[in-house]
Amino acid sequence: MKESVSESVAGSEAGSMNRWFDQLKWGSDGLIPAIAQDHVTGEVLMMAWMNPEALQLTDLHRRAVYWSRSRQQLWYKGESSGHIQTIHEIRTDCDADVILLQIEQQGGIACHTGRRRCFFRVLESGDWQIDEIVIKNPEEIYR
Amino acid sequence: MKESVSESVAGSEAGSMNRWFDQLKWGSDGLIPAIAQDHVTGEVLMMAWMNPEALQLTDLHRRAVYWSRSRQQLWYKGESSGHIQTIHEIRTDCDADVILLQIEQQGGIACHTGRRRCFFRVLESGDWQIDEIVIKNPEEIYR
Repeated sequence: MKESVSESVAGSEAGSMNRWFDQLKWGSDGLIPAIAQDHVTGEVLMMAWMNPEALQLTDLHRRAVYWSRSRQQLWYKGESSGHIQTIHEIRTDCDADVILLQIEQQGGIACHTGRRRCFFRVLESGDWQIDEIVIKNPEEIYR
Repeated sequence: MKESVSESVAGSEAGSMNRWFDQLKWGSDGLIPAIAQDHVTGEVLMMAWMNPEALQLTDLHRRAVYWSRSRQQLWYKGESSGHIQTIHEIRTDCDADVILLQIEQQGGIACHTGRRRCFFRVLESGDWQIDEIVIKNPEEIYR
């Protein structure tokens, strides 16, 4: 993956030391968690994972690209659904092992279940309660 | 760890099926990422990790308890610094593999560097730029 990154994305920087994405602490699986937050409302919409290529593509195209752990491939968020996430800001934390994105959620739906955000379950009375409505049926989104 | 959880925290529920924390998808390392968000401002302050015991203690005491991967032990946030995080809400996502906490940050400092939040580095002009001030010197915080 690193090689393909160097060739396809960061070719012009190849050989330079201490590139911004090299300063991050990538996990043993080569990934870093990325939190997507609505840049206006501040709502945390989802958390997914990125490899170095996904993060560089996210910065380059100013739209969120993740790494799908289940499919083991780059995941251009919104590719099937149209629910693209436009990037307003990319941050990292004190340990440089988490990414925080400020995004604009196209279509107002971040979750594959058709809800506004993935965090639609709240702990109440010792169980998870769903408190977000399905805005659009997933069958409609992904047909 | 599971056994100590059953004994120390969830003893009264021992034997019950499908407890709320058993419904979560814990990673291969037994941990789940937990995002702490300011319940008023919506700012994402930090992300850390929890094991089942940490999460149950968080719910029980209504203050954030994480699992320190570096120290390999429970991390009662604010134990040394006094910067306790009071819990207002606990959420999980569609995949049940991330926790989102709505918290009140005591002392207004979430980061061990003495800053309000851990996400104090923003990507600009191809490098990470610090844009949060140090509110309190870490040496003062942790003496």
